[in-house]
Amino acid sequence: MSSIESYLEAQQDGFVEELCDLLRIPSVSAQPAHQGDMRRAADWIEQRFRRMGFSTEVIPTSGHPLVYAESPRVENAPTVLVYGHYDVQPAEPFDLWTSPPFEPTRRDGHLFARGATDDKGQMLTHVFSAQAWIEVEGRLPLNLKYLIEGEEEVGSASLAAFVRENRERLACDCVVISDGAQFGPEQPAITYGLRGIAYYDLVLTGPNRDLHSGSFGGTVTNPANALARILAALIDEHGRIQVPGFYDDVVPLSERERQQMAALPFDERQYLEQIGVSGLSGEEGYTTLERRWARPTYDINGLSSGYQGDGAKTVLPKSAAAKFSFRLVPNQDPEKIGRALRTMLAALCPPGIQLELDEHHNTPGVLIPMDSASIAAAARAIERAFGRAPVYTREGGSIPVVSTFHEALGVDILLLGWGQDDDNTHSPNEKFSLVDFHRGIKASALLWEELSKPSR
Amino acid sequence: MSSIESYLEAQQDGFVEELCDLLRIPSVSAQPAHQGDMRRAADWIEQRFRRMGFSTEVIPTSGHPLVYAESPRVENAPTVLVYGHYDVQPAEPFDLWTSPPFEPTRRDGHLFARGATDDKGQMLTHVFSAQAWIEVEGRLPLNLKYLIEGEEEVGSASLAAFVRENRERLACDCVVISDGAQFGPEQPAITYGLRGIAYYDLVLTGPNRDLHSGSFGGTVTNPANALARILAALIDEHGRIQVPGFYDDVVPLSERERQQMAALPFDERQYLEQIGVSGLSGEEGYTTLERRWARPTYDINGLSSGYQGDGAKTVLPKSAAAKFSFRLVPNQDPEKIGRALRTMLAALCPPGIQLELDEHHNTPGVLIPMDSASIAAAARAIERAFGRAPVYTREGGSIPVVSTFHEALGVDILLLGWGQDDDNTHSPNEKFSLVDFHRGIKASALLWEELSKPSR
Repeated sequence: MSSIESYLEAQQDGFVEELCDLLRIPSVSAQPAHQGDMRRAADWIEQRFRRMGFSTEVIPTSGHPLVYAESPRVENAPTVLVYGHYDVQPAEPFDLWTSPPFEPTRRDGHLFARGATDDKGQMLTHVFSAQAWIEVEGRLPLNLKYLIEGEEEVGSASLAAFVRENRERLACDCVVISDGAQFGPEQPAITYGLRGIAYYDLVLTGPNRDLHSGSFGGTVTNPANALARILAALIDEHGRIQVPGFYDDVVPLSERERQQMAALPFDERQYLEQIGVSGLSGEEGYTTLERRWARPTYDINGLSSGYQGDGAKTVLPKSAAAKFSFRLVPNQDPEKIGRALRTMLAALCPPGIQLELDEHHNTPGVLIPMDSASIAAAARAIERAFGRAPVYTREGGSIPVVSTFHEALGVDILLLGWGQDDDNTHSPNEKFSLVDFHRGIKASALLWEELSKPSR
Repeated sequence: MSSIESYLEAQQDGFVEELCDLLRIPSVSAQPAHQGDMRRAADWIEQRFRRMGFSTEVIPTSGHPLVYAESPRVENAPTVLVYGHYDVQPAEPFDLWTSPPFEPTRRDGHLFARGATDDKGQMLTHVFSAQAWIEVEGRLPLNLKYLIEGEEEVGSASLAAFVRENRERLACDCVVISDGAQFGPEQPAITYGLRGIAYYDLVLTGPNRDLHSGSFGGTVTNPANALARILAALIDEHGRIQVPGFYDDVVPLSERERQQMAALPFDERQYLEQIGVSGLSGEEGYTTLERRWARPTYDINGLSSGYQGDGAKTVLPKSAAAKFSFRLVPNQDPEKIGRALRTMLAALCPPGIQLELDEHHNTPGVLIPMDSASIAAAARAIERAFGRAPVYTREGGSIPVVSTFHEALGVDILLLGWGQDDDNTHSPNEKFSLVDFHRGIKASALLWEELSKPSR
């Protein structure tokens, strides 16, 4: 392995340059204006694999294309499927970025750009690690399949269908995904649980036009007032979500899990400082880590109604809209919750208001067994690359495809995040530590070795 | 009077053309970009008075200028002060206008433009009526003073100060204001009561940036969730505003007033159709007219937070903002309510949220005595011009200066609205019926005669 490690050292600048090339493509999957950029990003990745001698395919979908690649066949060796995504979140608001989101900039040991850590940078660690094996050893110690999608930030609809319809082609011994964060600086982690999500668009429509709030106020139901009432009714003052049956299928945290989480070095004071708030709030009876990782949530993601400009406009707005989402924990069923929500909202809707609820996307939460051989192999690779054993954590976010892979392929999923919590994913000034980028590549190269050992 | 009436007939097209000239000036007082247009509109009005031989002045203020004009002195005759405003509401959203808001267009007997009825069209009726007297009779039968402001839609701050500091200059026997609506088509009204208003901007700020709702949701207080909770807490399910002491100073409707309102020909079915809603809601225990005219309200005028674009963005927004206002009824004190509101909001504000409440403007409600000689004179003038006696109504909207005039000058205020409820004031496609415009000019010309009669 020492010659592979030397190769990785020598290639560091080249790897960063290649990552920058990909980051310059504004592949924002949610915004139709970027359709061409989506295709450019997919082509870039396909060509990258082809240069390594992999068989490749850009697979069209009804949305954005999938990129699929396979390494040259190694007999009597396990097969690993690597998943990643080349799409990114919208970069708005642009004026809050210190350097432009699609002009990657090195600053203070980080690379700043939309997608730096989520997920272009992390995804490429598993590409560069394969290249190192091929360049240094002439071959990989195992078989690699890559499935890189362009719809992760908008619900992975095409990928989910593709995985379900291509079980044989995607057959593998485990799936590797790097699309998350370490536990903290210098503390890598293996994530064994993810929250799910159910995301909704709610639009309330009242009068056929904006009305003068003096002439009509007090008689015509105000859609913005109705929206505030409905959104507030979804959660109580103890942080408990009020959708009927919402908690019915939640598996309670075990005492062992709560102890393990409590033992993790989590500095709440630092957490507050990092976010810039003077206090926290959440579901009563749970610690901050438990609330982040293992309890469901309700967050309003956007609000829009009436006049939002300068000064005062005395309108009774014709409509009001909210985007909101529940983070779900393993065993909660998004479909069942969606039905209960719909019934609850209909009952809350006041006279003179038309209510429209659209479900954007949903995915259930996932738990991975902690005692599997692949998790042990990943722990060894990480300890060798980072010089420190990983901790075992859960993750508050959702990776919609993880449950799809788990269900369709029936294998372990290795969730190995190389990022940090303060990487500003989904926010202005997204960044990725260059040290972590290079350690991630090294851990990935070692992972191929560990997973190929017969001991597993 | 018959020669004045003939003159008005002959001048109809000319009056409309002049109104169109003024409507083409986009004098939006709330938007700093229109500062130059504000000055153009003020100059247009000043020159209009000068052409009639009035003494005029454009009075600079810290905001938009006031226009003041006086007719040539008539000895031993009463003095009437006419108030109006040349500023208009913002025209957004532009795409909902059938014809552009600042290109006045005649359609179906109406003139469509921002400001057509609120208040440029109505204000000019009292200018053209004076011109008729001067052109036909060589002089007015009484003394007219005009005070036309440019800040009505943003709280009339400069005018309020000017009136209080210029009581002698503005001394008069009554004030005439046309800035409202008739009771309905073919049913003119004299308005004896107005609601007041208190308008607020509420901004809740949480984390120092938009956060990933998966990584942080459930622990960091979401400003949009907090906003929904706070806004919902301001009113209960019976439509009762929850600010402590809010109703303490409300004068209950008298039984006589309730009977009078109930006797008015109000078609609730038509009201629903006009607005395009299937039902109404409001404070329990009151009729629709009582809710519109004589009961206080709480309306959210604008909401803004997080991601409002296409698709789903899983952010926990850094801030959330609302514009909201109370319509107040006579005897409620906006300052007292503002203080109680501030205390209530501070108590509702959750951990990790900074709350900022700005008061945009406020004005108390007003009631005018119904048995005064000036109201009788106005009733005669209206009956002669419209062929129908006016009904006596209250108005749900606010004219911030009415209470200022009432307090500072101690005289009756004649509120003579020539518009209609469906004129789309403050909405796209604002319009003014041309028949009402011309009847308004005629009623105004007759009003000068009625008010000059010694009988009063």
